[in-house]
Amino acid sequence: MSRSRISRVVVTPVAFGDPPLLNVVGVHQPYALRAIVELHTDSGLLGLGETYADEAHLARLDAVATALPGHDPYDLHGLRRLVTDVRGREVGGGGASFGGMLDVDSAVDTVYSPFEVASLDLQGREAGVPVSDLLGGAVRERVPFSGYLFYKWAGHPGHADDAWGEALTPEQVVAQAHRMVDGWGFGSLKLKGGVFPPEEECAAIEALRDAFPEMPLRLDPNGAWTVETSLEVASRLAGVVEYLEDPTPGIEGMAAVAAGTDVPLATNMCVIAMEHLPPAIAQDAVQVVLSDHHLWGGLRKSALLGGITDVWGLGLSMHSNSHLGVSLAAMVHLAAATPNLTYACDTHYPWKTQDVVADGVLSFSGGSVAVPTGPGLGVDLDRDALGELHELYLSCGVRRREDTVYMRSIEPGFTPNTSRW
Amino acid sequence: MSRSRISRVVVTPVAFGDPPLLNVVGVHQPYALRAIVELHTDSGLLGLGETYADEAHLARLDAVATALPGHDPYDLHGLRRLVTDVRGREVGGGGASFGGMLDVDSAVDTVYSPFEVASLDLQGREAGVPVSDLLGGAVRERVPFSGYLFYKWAGHPGHADDAWGEALTPEQVVAQAHRMVDGWGFGSLKLKGGVFPPEEECAAIEALRDAFPEMPLRLDPNGAWTVETSLEVASRLAGVVEYLEDPTPGIEGMAAVAAGTDVPLATNMCVIAMEHLPPAIAQDAVQVVLSDHHLWGGLRKSALLGGITDVWGLGLSMHSNSHLGVSLAAMVHLAAATPNLTYACDTHYPWKTQDVVADGVLSFSGGSVAVPTGPGLGVDLDRDALGELHELYLSCGVRRREDTVYMRSIEPGFTPNTSRW
Repeated sequence: MSRSRISRVVVTPVAFGDPPLLNVVGVHQPYALRAIVELHTDSGLLGLGETYADEAHLARLDAVATALPGHDPYDLHGLRRLVTDVRGREVGGGGASFGGMLDVDSAVDTVYSPFEVASLDLQGREAGVPVSDLLGGAVRERVPFSGYLFYKWAGHPGHADDAWGEALTPEQVVAQAHRMVDGWGFGSLKLKGGVFPPEEECAAIEALRDAFPEMPLRLDPNGAWTVETSLEVASRLAGVVEYLEDPTPGIEGMAAVAAGTDVPLATNMCVIAMEHLPPAIAQDAVQVVLSDHHLWGGLRKSALLGGITDVWGLGLSMHSNSHLGVSLAAMVHLAAATPNLTYACDTHYPWKTQDVVADGVLSFSGGSVAVPTGPGLGVDLDRDALGELHELYLSCGVRRREDTVYMRSIEPGFTPNTSRW
Repeated sequence: MSRSRISRVVVTPVAFGDPPLLNVVGVHQPYALRAIVELHTDSGLLGLGETYADEAHLARLDAVATALPGHDPYDLHGLRRLVTDVRGREVGGGGASFGGMLDVDSAVDTVYSPFEVASLDLQGREAGVPVSDLLGGAVRERVPFSGYLFYKWAGHPGHADDAWGEALTPEQVVAQAHRMVDGWGFGSLKLKGGVFPPEEECAAIEALRDAFPEMPLRLDPNGAWTVETSLEVASRLAGVVEYLEDPTPGIEGMAAVAAGTDVPLATNMCVIAMEHLPPAIAQDAVQVVLSDHHLWGGLRKSALLGGITDVWGLGLSMHSNSHLGVSLAAMVHLAAATPNLTYACDTHYPWKTQDVVADGVLSFSGGSVAVPTGPGLGVDLDRDALGELHELYLSCGVRRREDTVYMRSIEPGFTPNTSRW
């Protein structure tokens, strides 16, 4: 059997409409950006990946794309060296911005990720097996997701109200939750907090508890609180939330909170790379780590994270940014093949109305998505949709996720809320 | 593409001649035992694994073999569940004995391992890629091994002297080392200690240093020393050995030694399963972990161990028991695909004269073995040799590795030396 080689790489930035979802650093812009990575082989196969599309990140993706033809899709260690080398030649410049939410030291993991996913897609397509099989096999046929609730405005200023309407009060959050649960079947709910004073967000969680007595609930203020406030909230919501996500910034702060409560603390802010695990574990700072293959360096490195959390007895959940179907497929394969991923995964998927993948494979039922059984990721591009969303990228004017900048264009006095309360 | 299923499983115990190699618990018996696992698929492929062959272990392998037909070679998580279930139905019984050297709590990892390796061999053969590619790709074309020196008698009592002759003094150890280096090209040397008082073994290491001024050296007394003695040896051999392996038993003991020396401490005794990593790391007990896919639960779990040692900044080396070519092939693929396996691997390979794999793929040159480039493990069975070594198993009378029992048959007063000095 002759070995396939990567012959052509295409990176396509796309934009899609995003509602005005509020968070600790501001508000989502009218358009969310993603990049779709295509790896074509000389044997005629196509592997797909999806990642962030901030301009600096796109420049890095393009640099890798230029260097990649001739590469063997099985040589993931070599791919990582190639990405590291390309990064090493770079001068200056900030990568995926995460809207100002995260401080990501190294871009190697984020740049490597979509190429690794696309390589695994190719491996699966060539071997005729789903990506979950390349990760040890699916331990579940469906992957459960959590309904992701947001405080939001009725619509973007200057635009018509969106279909979801305003959610600024506990009652409106409960209404949004009903819509989420009725439409998608979610069996657990997460509220993105850090927007209002903690007592208001606690009241929203309590209203959700009243409306959904049996539903696992999570609250994630993205580090908006001090240690003292975090402990007060933990005391108030003990027995109500399954975990609190990033109540306060930093490993030391989280460790101080963890020492004073039995409520599990989850994180996608203070432990977002392998090098954060040793200090976080040594200080018992977090009880649940949120994996994210876009951020942690692909599916195999996320599997390594899963193994580490298993060995150290930590919980494992999954983080989401605004994303499209290629990412959803990769998330589902990873979650399916991770035995100890026992929490429902986060997803922004319900908040978007457009996609780049062809209909028919990914759909929510009972809050979960069936693991695709076709070769590779099991999803195919809808070329028309990809073209349309690329046109939207070209015309929309957004080139970088900037939640704070956008919020300040509407509320000039706004400052990010981290550790505010 | 239709999916291959395992249709037939064959477990063949084999024996091969083994010299009287001395260690802390006694001496190697005249025959070493291994089991060769064959997974045949309905598509006509054959995958190979190799493991221990103590009787209790064989019984477990046979129980899994009976349950395995119909299984998908890609479903490794399901394989692990199957092995766990089969183990759960078992009553009583001790598994692979390691000659009394190790206390292995759970047999799941050791029973799972050869079936996982054989499954990966099948995956590679089906996809037309080497196993190293299934582990992320080879980062080196050749895998370096360390020459494994042993104190030994001239021959087994009652048998003729073997070709290696006696090695009981520093001069004889140096002569053995010359033979190893001249014949195999090793670029580093390990002495199995725990046999003589530490000053004699230090003298042997110093004699090796004089004879091979630039050669990395290791000494492994298998926990024969107290903490105090370990510190004295570390002081004497600082700058002479690249690491001391298991100078004293247990994580606490190793931590006490580590606190008093800068000589790196390696282990294949106190950290031999995932659950030993958290306490060992918390106590900074070891600086180098020896992986061993037979013991740690296969190649992917060994890759997880490699990832963990990388994250925590620990060194990684590789352990060996007496083994044949199927194991060597698996070790070479694993080592090739582990970027941070920066120490030469251990191997007992030079000590045997028989094998079950066909000639031509695995050979030592300059102390290293070229990574097989054929599909799967890249090695094939020599059916005649397999039959002969199975006949030898049937006739040799050894059914369990029992170094202490055998030693006592020769020296009735012998007691294992652990923490003796």
